[in-house]
Order: sequence, then C-alpha cells, then structure tokens
Amino acid sequence: MIKQIVLKSRPFGTPTAANFETKFIELPALADGEVRLVAHTFSVDPYLRGRMSDAKSYIAPFQVGEPIVSGLVACVSESKAANLKVGDYVMDRLSWQEELVVPAAGLQKVDEKIAPLSYYLGILGMPGLTAYFGLLDIGKPQQGETVVVSGAAGAVGLVVGQIAKIQGCRVVGIAGDDAKNDYLMKELNFDAVINYKTVENLDAAIATACPSGVDVYFDNVGGEISDAVNAQINNGARIIICGQISLYNATRLPVGPRIQPTLLKRSSLMQGFIVSDYASRFPEGFKALVNWVVSGQLKYTQTTYRGFDQLPEAFIALFEGKNLGKLIIEV
Amino acid sequence: MIKQIVLKSRPFGTPTAANFETKFIELPALADGEVRLVAHTFSVDPYLRGRMSDAKSYIAPFQVGEPIVSGLVACVSESKAANLKVGDYVMDRLSWQEELVVPAAGLQKVDEKIAPLSYYLGILGMPGLTAYFGLLDIGKPQQGETVVVSGAAGAVGLVVGQIAKIQGCRVVGIAGDDAKNDYLMKELNFDAVINYKTVENLDAAIATACPSGVDVYFDNVGGEISDAVNAQINNGARIIICGQISLYNATRLPVGPRIQPTLLKRSSLMQGFIVSDYASRFPEGFKALVNWVVSGQLKYTQTTYRGFDQLPEAFIALFEGKNLGKLIIEV
Repeated sequence: MIKQIVLKSRPFGTPTAANFETKFIELPALADGEVRLVAHTFSVDPYLRGRMSDAKSYIAPFQVGEPIVSGLVACVSESKAANLKVGDYVMDRLSWQEELVVPAAGLQKVDEKIAPLSYYLGILGMPGLTAYFGLLDIGKPQQGETVVVSGAAGAVGLVVGQIAKIQGCRVVGIAGDDAKNDYLMKELNFDAVINYKTVENLDAAIATACPSGVDVYFDNVGGEISDAVNAQINNGARIIICGQISLYNATRLPVGPRIQPTLLKRSSLMQGFIVSDYASRFPEGFKALVNWVVSGQLKYTQTTYRGFDQLPEAFIALFEGKNLGKLIIEV
Repeated sequence: MIKQIVLKSRPFGTPTAANFETKFIELPALADGEVRLVAHTFSVDPYLRGRMSDAKSYIAPFQVGEPIVSGLVACVSESKAANLKVGDYVMDRLSWQEELVVPAAGLQKVDEKIAPLSYYLGILGMPGLTAYFGLLDIGKPQQGETVVVSGAAGAVGLVVGQIAKIQGCRVVGIAGDDAKNDYLMKELNFDAVINYKTVENLDAAIATACPSGVDVYFDNVGGEISDAVNAQINNGARIIICGQISLYNATRLPVGPRIQPTLLKRSSLMQGFIVSDYASRFPEGFKALVNWVVSGQLKYTQTTYRGFDQLPEAFIALFEGKNLGKLIIEV
C-alpha cells in the first residue's frame, strides 16, 4: 500500500489541511510501455489553488476525491518501456503519491549531471520558463529601463529579477520579508527592494525606488500592491500578468481601481499568460536558462520541506509568503 | 474683431456651457511664412474632455483663459507662404476661432476632389486612423473571429466595425440608441447590435450576439458595458483601449471588477493607445482608408452642427450619445 493525497473538499478562501485527505492505495502491475516511479521531489505552485476551485480557467479543476497533481521529479524503479531504465530520473506533472505507475510516453528525462534534480522543478522548469518568456517576450525590457517585480523572492520572481539585470535594467523587487529582501539585494544584486508589509507609504517607496518611473511590471501578486505600481507606469509600459496570488483565495469578485484609463493615458499594455502558451519554444528557453545557470549569471535558491506528508502544509505556506525561492518537498 | 472660444473654467464632471466663454480678438498682420485662415469645419472629439482637466495625460491640458484647440479644416484667405495660396484648404489642430493667423509649416493640405472636406476630420482623419491602427495593429482580427465594438455608432466605432467586416469577422456593435443600431445593421452590415440602454440583461445579450465568445473587443466606452464584454473574452483575446468615454466625466477614481484575473486565465491582452503612437505609419493608414472609401467598402456618416457659436453645445452633446458618426461643426 502506498500513500496518496486527494482533494477532500474545495477550499473556501485560503486552503486548510482539512481540504486534503491521505488515502492508501495499491498500484497495478506494469503494462507494456509503463514504468513504476518512486517520488523524489515534488513542486507546489500557487496556480494549484485555481485547480482546487471549479471555476472556468485555463486548466481543468481537480475533482473531489481525486489526487492533487503537481510537478514531480521521480526515479524509475521498474520499467516496461524501451526508453527508460531503472535508476533514470524523470519529471512531469504527476499525482501526489509516494509511488506511481504511469505510461513512459510524455515523461521528461532529467539529468543530474547538468543541474541538481530539484532545479528541473524550478529555475530549469516551469517557474524558470515562466520568468524567461513572460519577461522577455511580453515585457521586452530594454537596457536602462526600470523593471519592477512583485513576489520578487518567489520561484518566478527571483529569476525575473536576475534576467532583467542581465538585460541591463534597473531592477526593483517587492516582497513581504526583510530577510528575503536582503537576499535579493546582497546575493542577486537587485537595485532596490520594498517590503510591502512594513513600508509606511507604498506609493512614496515606489517613487523613490523608481526615479524614472516603471517601464516593465512583472506582476505575480495583484491587488493593492499592483495598484500602486501600475499608477507609476511610464508611457509605453508593459505589465505582465503572471500571477495574482493575493486574489487566489478571494471569496468575492475582487474590485479595485479601473486600470483602463491608465493604460489609455500611457499607451501601455497589460497581458496575461501561462507558460504553456510558449510550449513550442521551451527548448530555446531551457537552453538559455541552463547557460545562465552554468555560467553563474543566474543564481538559485529554494525552500525545502521534507516528507511526503508535508505536501499540504507546504502548499498552504505558499499563501503565507514563507518561502524564499522555489518551494519543494523532498519525499 | 473675430470670435474666439476659450476655457473659462475646468469642468467638474460633465462639461457645461458655463465652462466656455466667447472673446473678441484682433488678429495680427501676417509675417513671412504665415497664412490667414477662415474656419470651415471643426471637429469635436471625446479626448478633448481630458485636456480640460489638469491631470497628467498624454497631452498637455488646456489653460484657463486660453482657446480650446481641436481639428479644423480651414480655407486660406491670405498667404505669405510659398506652398499655400488663397483658396487652398488645410487641416490641423487649431484654436476655436472664426479666423486664425498661423505658420504654414505643419498644416496639412487637403483635397476636396478626393473626398468631402469634412472627411479629413473623420474617416480620413484622426478617427479613421484610430480605428485602422487600433483594430489592425493591436486587435489583429482574423477571419471568422468575433469583434465587439462599443461606441459602435461613433466616429471611430463605425469605422472599426466596417474594417472588421472587411477582415471577414463577425461584428457586434454596442450603442445606446435604436436608430443608431438600425443604421449599423442595415447600412453597415453589422452582424448583431445591442442597445445597452434598453437591453434587459446585457450579459445574456452579449452571449447571444457572440455565440463563439469575444476574440477582439474595441473599447471606446469603458465602465460596466466593458465589464460585461470582458467577462466573455476567449483565450488569446485582444482588448483595445481606445476610449473610456463613460469615465471621462468621473469625479472620483473609477472602481470596478479587477480585470487581471481574467487576462491571466484567458492569456489575453489589453492595450491602450493614442493614434499619434502610429504617426510614422499615417501615410499607410490614409492610403488604405482612401481606397476603401473610394471603392465603397467603407461607408461614412456624420452629425453636423451649424455655426461657430454651436461649438460648446456640440462638444457637450458627445457625452449625451446624441451623435451618429463623426460630430462636426460647419462654421
């Protein structure tokens, strides 16, 4: 018997441990083309919150009673597939189970020699690609421009800031913790940081951090923090809507100042996206990210929880802003 | 002495006649390179409302005591400029005066043989170019897609709808008057129209008019009409923010449902613009518009006020939704 964690009930507002349930299941024998996997490292990401509701979104909702699915690096323990052998590591979006039996087709083989396995869930995985395409393809940052990123110490945010530095931009990070902000300034060479939780006047802090205004805003959080940044965009600004974590647990339709008059007066763009919009260009993004990681231009950090049973707690912690960098769970 | 209309006071909310004042002025003698003009046809446009306030915008505010400036076709009555002779017609943004003395440089010569003079203020002028670049460059409508336009019977809206038809799109117009909507359906071949003032359920009306959802929304009005359209956009939709006339007279910061979560879930774009962003491409747009007008693919209509003194009243009427097509004032 192996453990499986399922959605017990849909959250109302912020998820709690009561929304999850652990089941014990038997795995079937392998069919041809299948492999048995042992879970090694799970990823939890804010977008999973959307799948716990049954509202229309870009991705189908989880079903109550069915397992949660998220990024997983796993080790092959049995194989009836020609392309995978015991001991190989693979990555995919997979069920929250200690072990799995799945078709080998579609699993991405990952190589521990290029980078640590957990990197394939972070800087070399979905969060890294999200930062890469969102910033470069939508944001189009130019040398000398000011780039603001919210959720700056999160898995996506810290990659965004570093890629913007590589492009020659002034980079301003917004996060809710002084230790995180110290890390962004000292380790990642951000030009300025703002702690939105302790700052007295957010508008004034943004004006001070962005003396030439905001050219690109990479928005991971939404809500009032973003209202304050959006009010200071320059003519021709680009606002990238990557996440809205401050709104994911909203129980009513979020209301705020209308952005349209600002976009009109400043001839500016706001664009939402999901990384899979760029699926055909993943090899390009992956190659660039690997090169920057290997050359040391991109640094990386993560927050690690240990133990399969910690999955729900780690996920809930995302909404408390506790993680520095990618949040992973080593089984 | 000639008449000049100046901004007497900044409007609070909707402009009234009391915000304008008529002065009598003497014109100076011509200097070299200057011409004397007799006003022929003025244009009034919603964007002028923004210039009557002193908020930061893409264009400098009018000063109290100084004349209002808007599009004008005028006839040369005296010339000390080599390139213009008496009887020539020119177009530019000029002061609300019966006659003017201005430098000839920068005046655009217009040709009555290509199209009626008033067309250079409408379908072949700023409104036409606004429709052309906003729809084609930002909206990128594809054959078979559904394009919704608000303010559909206005100077820009009716050009947007017709260009979208030329692109092979399903075109849905929103306006506040049955006579306007009849015109859009019968004369301009729109596929569906909605009278937002009389419809019982706007959401249901949009769903009925757009059975395949909304791919492109050309937004001239903003506010609750746009909230309803934006809620029904498809994945990959493009929302063009051209005007927000419903908000121009707002006396408090307009608040409404946050659009960011929708843009995120639908991987969609919202972009504000002003026609001068495309100044370098005006010849391309002008040529295309002339061709469509000459071939009969683009029809055109306007609402005419007569008499210089009617300028303030005509401008105020814009916000009452009275005009079908471009609103012009023949002096």
